[in-house]
Amino acid sequence: MHEFGFIDWLRKRQTPGHQTTIGIGDDTAGFRFSPGCDALITTDMLLEGSCFLLAEAGAEAVGRKALAVNLSDIAAMAGIPKAALISLALPRKKGAEIAQGLFRGIESLARDYEVEIIGGDTNSWNGPLSISITLFGESTAKGPVKRSGAEIGDVIFVTGPLGGSILGRHLNFEPRVREALQLHRAFDLHSMIDLSDGLSRDLGHICEESHCGAEIWARELPITPAAQQLSRQDGRTPEYHALHDGEDFELCFTVSESVAEQIRKDPMWNCTAIGRIQKAEQGIRLLDENNQWQPLEAQGYQHEFD
Amino acid sequence: MHEFGFIDWLRKRQTPGHQTTIGIGDDTAGFRFSPGCDALITTDMLLEGSCFLLAEAGAEAVGRKALAVNLSDIAAMAGIPKAALISLALPRKKGAEIAQGLFRGIESLARDYEVEIIGGDTNSWNGPLSISITLFGESTAKGPVKRSGAEIGDVIFVTGPLGGSILGRHLNFEPRVREALQLHRAFDLHSMIDLSDGLSRDLGHICEESHCGAEIWARELPITPAAQQLSRQDGRTPEYHALHDGEDFELCFTVSESVAEQIRKDPMWNCTAIGRIQKAEQGIRLLDENNQWQPLEAQGYQHEFD
Repeated sequence: MHEFGFIDWLRKRQTPGHQTTIGIGDDTAGFRFSPGCDALITTDMLLEGSCFLLAEAGAEAVGRKALAVNLSDIAAMAGIPKAALISLALPRKKGAEIAQGLFRGIESLARDYEVEIIGGDTNSWNGPLSISITLFGESTAKGPVKRSGAEIGDVIFVTGPLGGSILGRHLNFEPRVREALQLHRAFDLHSMIDLSDGLSRDLGHICEESHCGAEIWARELPITPAAQQLSRQDGRTPEYHALHDGEDFELCFTVSESVAEQIRKDPMWNCTAIGRIQKAEQGIRLLDENNQWQPLEAQGYQHEFD
Repeated sequence: MHEFGFIDWLRKRQTPGHQTTIGIGDDTAGFRFSPGCDALITTDMLLEGSCFLLAEAGAEAVGRKALAVNLSDIAAMAGIPKAALISLALPRKKGAEIAQGLFRGIESLARDYEVEIIGGDTNSWNGPLSISITLFGESTAKGPVKRSGAEIGDVIFVTGPLGGSILGRHLNFEPRVREALQLHRAFDLHSMIDLSDGLSRDLGHICEESHCGAEIWARELPITPAAQQLSRQDGRTPEYHALHDGEDFELCFTVSESVAEQIRKDPMWNCTAIGRIQKAEQGIRLLDENNQWQPLEAQGYQHEFD
């Protein structure tokens, strides 16, 4: 409903080479999904002051992140991203400048992942910046990978090092869309999730939906230099940061032992085995740096409000 | 990404009788569109202080309206609404109470129109309330009705009386989803739009996208009691309010003369002929209350920002 040349602005900047939309009008976009696929739909809202500091991050990085977190959600299902809608509440002051920065960030990432911007809703108000992106994707012919398919004995992998994202990577991470599609094509992935709220919490989602437990091997965790740096600052171990920090946006997936062997022996996959799916009764346990078993409590980001 | 039991909350409240989604996980929903249909996608964001006053309207009415404006966009294409995603930025103070009110309003309307709530993103922050709904629909087998199909000689209809919506109807209007589907099934609708920004402005969208002009007959305009009331207060004519007030959310559509005859002679349609599509060179003209021709300038709601 509320547009002021936003769609015109977008039309001029639309990712070239995409002819998936049918032109219908400014308020509603038409989209033809591939026959037989599941349409995958995800939405994320980023809020100034709560999710980012605009003055610190800059509008371009915020725009990029707003799309990237949605791409990560589609990657978590090994889906193919297709099209996005962008809703903005812009502060009245410098609204146009902020919008242009946001779109630069969105557009650059949209081009990389062949995502078409098919519409949105742009408003200005007296509040802070709020950006909400809804992203559509399609499942591949093999179908989507779910959180609920982990099996006892599965090996748990992550696609990259973890922890300390707050030092910068949370703004410029690369969503693991291509890695997910390659893994899904090559192997039978039993379950997958993207690590947005911290490994301890997100692994809990897999265990809950798959009705299983898990063990994590602290010594095997791949750890970022940023987690090492945070560790020196706050005295927590680097493993603590790898286990609990949010916004890594790596993928965590589980596969059978035989698939795990293939992934381990081929360095092109660049994935690290960090644990194993266990019976539900065992809960989620950590084999710590001192080879002691302890319960692994979720301590990642928990959203709260009154 | 950011949920705190929101999906759990929704699961318990999901519209019964709908089995269209596939359960995948909290962050991304899967949806199977009907084969061969066009997926119709629309999004609208309502902002406290700018689009509504929360204390005055109440959260339930705001939630209802947030879905209703999206339903109206799908109705404008004679689409079948299917599923919605809801993104919220809640004020920290009384956030849970506001969320429950919003969902009561959303849920009630969703049930009426068989819309399934398939996901969303709920956050709290120090800003005012912001609600963004993305609604998915499907075209019927006849395809979507567009803004761009008006033909010279078409008769212009509206589905109900216009003007003065600000006195209350903007919060409790009934989106014309069923009317649109019935008209689309019975007739060949050349073009259609929902009246959100005022007849003068929205008719301009049809004319622009159809490359045509139009004439409107002031004496034929159906006028609400609210427009009469506003007229007594501000001295503008009731016709002025019917032409320019925003948020009527009636449909404006154009059909051939022969279809117009059928609609006129059958009172069940309850639609009013208010003008005719003309050549582009004639622009948009008004035959006013005194039978004088004058140019019809768009004066409906124009979104502005710095």
